[in-house]
Amino acid sequence: MTVFDVTPRARDLRERLTAFMEEHIYPNDAEVHRQIDTGNRWEHLPLIDQLKPRAQEAGLWNLFLPPASSRDGKYGAGLNNLEYAGLCEIMGRVWWAPEVFNCSAPDTGNMEVLARYGTPEQQEQWLIPLLNGEIRSAFSMTEPDVASSDATNIQSSIVRDGDEYVINGDKWWTSGAGDPRCKISIFMGKTDPTAAKHLQQSMILVPLDAPGVTKERMLTVFGYDDAPHGHAQMTFRDVRVPAANMLLGEGRGFEIAQGRLGPGRIHHCMRLIGQAERALELMIERAGQRTAFGKPLSGHQHVREAIAHSRMEIDQARLLTMNAAHMMDTVGNKEARGQIAAIKVVAPNVALRVIDRAIQVYGGAGVSQDTPLAMMYAQARTLRLADGPDIVHTETVAKVEMKRHAARQG
Amino acid sequence: MTVFDVTPRARDLRERLTAFMEEHIYPNDAEVHRQIDTGNRWEHLPLIDQLKPRAQEAGLWNLFLPPASSRDGKYGAGLNNLEYAGLCEIMGRVWWAPEVFNCSAPDTGNMEVLARYGTPEQQEQWLIPLLNGEIRSAFSMTEPDVASSDATNIQSSIVRDGDEYVINGDKWWTSGAGDPRCKISIFMGKTDPTAAKHLQQSMILVPLDAPGVTKERMLTVFGYDDAPHGHAQMTFRDVRVPAANMLLGEGRGFEIAQGRLGPGRIHHCMRLIGQAERALELMIERAGQRTAFGKPLSGHQHVREAIAHSRMEIDQARLLTMNAAHMMDTVGNKEARGQIAAIKVVAPNVALRVIDRAIQVYGGAGVSQDTPLAMMYAQARTLRLADGPDIVHTETVAKVEMKRHAARQG
Amino acid sequence: MTVFDVTPRARDLRERLTAFMEEHIYPNDAEVHRQIDTGNRWEHLPLIDQLKPRAQEAGLWNLFLPPASSRDGKYGAGLNNLEYAGLCEIMGRVWWAPEVFNCSAPDTGNMEVLARYGTPEQQEQWLIPLLNGEIRSAFSMTEPDVASSDATNIQSSIVRDGDEYVINGDKWWTSGAGDPRCKISIFMGKTDPTAAKHLQQSMILVPLDAPGVTKERMLTVFGYDDAPHGHAQMTFRDVRVPAANMLLGEGRGFEIAQGRLGPGRIHHCMRLIGQAERALELMIERAGQRTAFGKPLSGHQHVREAIAHSRMEIDQARLLTMNAAHMMDTVGNKEARGQIAAIKVVAPNVALRVIDRAIQVYGGAGVSQDTPLAMMYAQARTLRLADGPDIVHTETVAKVEMKRHAARQG
Amino acid sequence: MTVFDVTPRARDLRERLTAFMEEHIYPNDAEVHRQIDTGNRWEHLPLIDQLKPRAQEAGLWNLFLPPASSRDGKYGAGLNNLEYAGLCEIMGRVWWAPEVFNCSAPDTGNMEVLARYGTPEQQEQWLIPLLNGEIRSAFSMTEPDVASSDATNIQSSIVRDGDEYVINGDKWWTSGAGDPRCKISIFMGKTDPTAAKHLQQSMILVPLDAPGVTKERMLTVFGYDDAPHGHAQMTFRDVRVPAANMLLGEGRGFEIAQGRLGPGRIHHCMRLIGQAERALELMIERAGQRTAFGKPLSGHQHVREAIAHSRMEIDQARLLTMNAAHMMDTVGNKEARGQIAAIKVVAPNVALRVIDRAIQVYGGAGVSQDTPLAMMYAQARTLRLADGPDIVHTETVAKVEMKRHAARQG
Repeated sequence: MTVFDVTPRARDLRERLTAFMEEHIYPNDAEVHRQIDTGNRWEHLPLIDQLKPRAQEAGLWNLFLPPASSRDGKYGAGLNNLEYAGLCEIMGRVWWAPEVFNCSAPDTGNMEVLARYGTPEQQEQWLIPLLNGEIRSAFSMTEPDVASSDATNIQSSIVRDGDEYVINGDKWWTSGAGDPRCKISIFMGKTDPTAAKHLQQSMILVPLDAPGVTKERMLTVFGYDDAPHGHAQMTFRDVRVPAANMLLGEGRGFEIAQGRLGPGRIHHCMRLIGQAERALELMIERAGQRTAFGKPLSGHQHVREAIAHSRMEIDQARLLTMNAAHMMDTVGNKEARGQIAAIKVVAPNVALRVIDRAIQVYGGAGVSQDTPLAMMYAQARTLRLADGPDIVHTETVAKVEMKRHAARQG
Repeated sequence: MTVFDVTPRARDLRERLTAFMEEHIYPNDAEVHRQIDTGNRWEHLPLIDQLKPRAQEAGLWNLFLPPASSRDGKYGAGLNNLEYAGLCEIMGRVWWAPEVFNCSAPDTGNMEVLARYGTPEQQEQWLIPLLNGEIRSAFSMTEPDVASSDATNIQSSIVRDGDEYVINGDKWWTSGAGDPRCKISIFMGKTDPTAAKHLQQSMILVPLDAPGVTKERMLTVFGYDDAPHGHAQMTFRDVRVPAANMLLGEGRGFEIAQGRLGPGRIHHCMRLIGQAERALELMIERAGQRTAFGKPLSGHQHVREAIAHSRMEIDQARLLTMNAAHMMDTVGNKEARGQIAAIKVVAPNVALRVIDRAIQVYGGAGVSQDTPLAMMYAQARTLRLADGPDIVHTETVAKVEMKRHAARQG
Repeated sequence: MTVFDVTPRARDLRERLTAFMEEHIYPNDAEVHRQIDTGNRWEHLPLIDQLKPRAQEAGLWNLFLPPASSRDGKYGAGLNNLEYAGLCEIMGRVWWAPEVFNCSAPDTGNMEVLARYGTPEQQEQWLIPLLNGEIRSAFSMTEPDVASSDATNIQSSIVRDGDEYVINGDKWWTSGAGDPRCKISIFMGKTDPTAAKHLQQSMILVPLDAPGVTKERMLTVFGYDDAPHGHAQMTFRDVRVPAANMLLGEGRGFEIAQGRLGPGRIHHCMRLIGQAERALELMIERAGQRTAFGKPLSGHQHVREAIAHSRMEIDQARLLTMNAAHMMDTVGNKEARGQIAAIKVVAPNVALRVIDRAIQVYGGAGVSQDTPLAMMYAQARTLRLADGPDIVHTETVAKVEMKRHAARQG
Repeated sequence: MTVFDVTPRARDLRERLTAFMEEHIYPNDAEVHRQIDTGNRWEHLPLIDQLKPRAQEAGLWNLFLPPASSRDGKYGAGLNNLEYAGLCEIMGRVWWAPEVFNCSAPDTGNMEVLARYGTPEQQEQWLIPLLNGEIRSAFSMTEPDVASSDATNIQSSIVRDGDEYVINGDKWWTSGAGDPRCKISIFMGKTDPTAAKHLQQSMILVPLDAPGVTKERMLTVFGYDDAPHGHAQMTFRDVRVPAANMLLGEGRGFEIAQGRLGPGRIHHCMRLIGQAERALELMIERAGQRTAFGKPLSGHQHVREAIAHSRMEIDQARLLTMNAAHMMDTVGNKEARGQIAAIKVVAPNVALRVIDRAIQVYGGAGVSQDTPLAMMYAQARTLRLADGPDIVHTETVAKVEMKRHAARQG
């Protein structure tokens, strides 16, 4: 409970979401893993299809779109970032849960981009089916051959040719591309390598069935393939798409990326906090059940310290993230960029520490398939890299701070 | 700027306080140290006496008393814990500033105890002069011969003898006793060593000029004597005080301690955050002024990382502390005891890390008398010990968390 | 280069081993993974079979047996712990390399137990084929239902019945049991639950094809199955083995465990140091190749700090481990138990920090199958648990230290 | 006991030194502080004068000069760096002890410079009285107005004028200048600001009684003035010294600094390790004496963890330092520069962590004058700055490592 638990509407949604998680998500966790492990790993999971209509009926659908993007509630639930943050934490507690509520990455970010910047035609063709949960989407930005933390490194090209754009490039960590329902990717590449640094890039819609688009292989994350979602390495060879697939206009890729990033970071961080909370609960549970050297694990001070430090770190990370969400809602993404950068450093590192402590309390079970901990760790670890490594965001925090200091000094 | 900056009244006080600090405190820092170093170290500082009436005129006086203790504004400004927290941070930026506003420890805690639990006579005799800033006070709890983190260890005795109590015991870290205006101490000792654990202790008012009270020596903190405030080691030998000096009643020492602790911890933590903010500002200032290896220090990535991590840690610690204050205001000290314990661990450690980084950026100046950093470090270091060492509060956080978990599990 | 590089013989072996690694191991790393990923994962790898005779020819075979266990060189190379340590580090740089030299766990520990405590018949039947690399072995100690860090928790039973023992129990993390050539396991269980604490346990040889022995499933470590070696969960239901399979005698399980542990920990730690060195090399390599924000990664100070701290930590961990080996060689395992406990805490944590930094420098490639880093991390993480979690060894270090202090005080 | 305990001669000296410490140093610690606190703080201590002849008689005098500097034993004991390291640790356990053995900084470094580079006349005039312990010396390098971590920043000038040099500059942290017997300082300044970067600087001998030399004030370190040794801020205004006072030659200041630094860092680090060992002993002592919550402090797991981690860190730091000493002895200071840089980062940080844990175990006593801990902390903290801040040495370690890697890659 914090000062942030403000609106009755958010509190109501939180209660209903928690109830849904308890009724439909936690009890089905084992079944989801059974379906993945026993079928073709890259098929859509029947269970998730069964749960989606229930979430829709329960009014727990497309909760993520903030008012600015939802065109006054035309799309989505119209929750502001602070209201959604608390819900995102709850969904994030189980890795496959967000999709049930049509709130999973990278679909959320893609839908937000389409809602904000898409033409009516683009929205009709791609946004509506995405909002309905009928198709899924990917985001193709990172490239295998360059340090993508520096976006100016990007080598992919998007070249106008008559009514079409011709797309070439190698991409990897195209997450979600493993799902057979993944139909569309937002692709980032350079339309004009000679333009000013931040005007070289564009984003364009590329259907995954377009000729020249190839899924080369699926990447693993600490041994996990994250099926059926997955992370693809892809090649784009002379892929032709209609010129109308361009988003917002040539050279505006950075602008879109900026707008996309803020909410996405809140989401990632709140899901991580949800994971950390769950890891802490599991840790406490185990600490009460196992006995070593004549007393329960919770009777050992270092276990209690693990619990206490986890609580202190999680609470701080949550408050920081909710404060960043609140800043976005009140002063805007640009003014809040320091706060947004800060949570992107803090939340993954806190989650990793908490999960790691839980693993240690569990012993061998902690690294095995018998707890969700090792998989949680692997996923959280990628978030110190994905969407910019720690150092990039740390530099942003420093830059904002030094500017603020200079302004104060006059 | 955070979600916590709520009431206009708090915002107004913050602005006026900031202006006062800029006009009267920062510019006089050097003069205060000059007065200490050139006079008798243990005399009251003339400068502080000059500033007190100005603070009173400015309406910046006795800001600390929360409504529950202020008898509906009869005493103090009637600010709640959250409102005061932000002000406490600002005053805390300079170690001698709180006294100017009559908001310095241990007077604040003592005044709160007297306002809450004192008889009208006790209030007349001691609270009113304290509220007027005419006298100062001390708190005698810690003992040199036992681990005082475990309050049941306390060996001092308070024995009823007719209309008097006879007091015996050795105390140290009686902070503030160095000041010649320190007239009274709240003394903790056992009235009944055979009672139940938490009913053995009592608190009683002991005038420092009572026969049998001796200041044995002043303690140093690292190499600082913290004159003229100071930390005394004291002996109490057959000290007789009127029975009416007993606070609340025999055996109620723990009860008083509990009530006293919550606000005191908010104050300590917010002052630490103020110190950390100031250290961060000093760090940034130096980073822009000095040059090494062909660029300003701020051109070196490790300095920028020091700045960024300090900002991230301070913001988290502040949010955690303000949230704890908010919890105290809304659900009460007892319900908020986990949060109060958490800040007592987090804030001193954060402050120490930030100050230490600032020292490193300053080089030799950082450990010397030329910056306030080393003294800030020494003071912050004691707060990992004073009022309970880290581990005691860490255990509280764990206990609360495990109980909460058990309650959730039904 | 350290003071420990002493004997010419060790130096010679180190050079030849390094040459072998460069000629036969590193270049075949990709092929090993191809064989695992394309065949039946649980078949023995042809490549390793081809390399074993070459290692034998090169005189790089069974290097691990210290003189005390090698019966004066009857078995093994007769290297002392310090001499072997440096070789173990080199082999450990590639996870599958030790088997090529017949120096992989748990075979090494098992062979040492058989060499030290086995009867001539036991040695004939199991030790000789193991020394020849014809069969492989497992060690069944950890149990899924209890905290095995406290060995007194073990629930498996070994009951004498005429000329046989009847074995019952659930075991997991029986590493190596995935290999089809794994023929024998050393099984730990209680022969007398009523005996004094350290006399309840025994170790006995259990052929894996004995009726009642079932591999229930293979465990994953993070997402890795570590095929074809693997980690099995196994049940032993009324398994009958000849009474002659008992090792050393009933109730002497702890005694054997103690003897086994010292060298095993040196081996684990030196392999971890080898892994850390390789991670550091990979980190430096990448830092020179990739460019971000206009300069190579190595031009960024935080990357150089990652390199420097890795070097400092690895060097300290190696010196600590080699010193522990030296102590074992000179004053014996019992006297060196504090040092042995210390390395078991230090080395895995150092390796994890170094590998984690390397992952961060690599970005997405670091967590994927394109570098060995994520797998190295997963394996190193288990070594904060396997063979006792950090806290157990930390407690040993403290105990030894406090005893030493007490002895000094007289 | 480590592998480094090699020569019988070193072992013998260690035993005799330990005996001397027990007989003459530890029992006099309180008396030393009494003499400082009750007399004129800046007078030479009578007790130390009484102990010096005893140390000489015991053959424990000038142990620090390595063979290369001792002119084949003409001066000093002729111990190599590894042999001396162990002795330096023992002397370092008490801050005032090294002077008793004529082994205190900065005299040791100054004597080494004079022994190596001094002319016969310089040696006659300054080295002999220093070796006899009759006078003391200082080293004037750091300047208040620039980042002295970058030696090219130095602003002091040394200008030839006929048979003299004219010296101008501001210096601070001229340690040892507080002692009335301090007669001479080695002064670093620029003789030719237009020369190549590393040829601009020179070192020259400046008698402290030369006209124009002024001790402006004494600096404090966390409140300590470190009397009677002390750290002076000094001005040099048109100070004239004979041209013969130049050391080695104009422009060779860097060269001398390089030679001086290696052994000096070993000494600093081994003294720090001695301090850390003593802090650990004090921690264990207290942990056995105090009781909290029904058991001795040592019965609390976090105290045992503090003990264990301190032991593990100290042992690693000592091995690293002894290995660096061994490298200096065998491959030379230049080849060992990576190792020397590493210990300068590792040892102070380890000492600080250990001392800080000891403070925490002691509670209030830990920060006060009742234990040596706070003073030890303050001194150790300066060593993360003095003689180059952590980052400078960290960069050296990285540079050496990357070069080594490049060499290996061919």
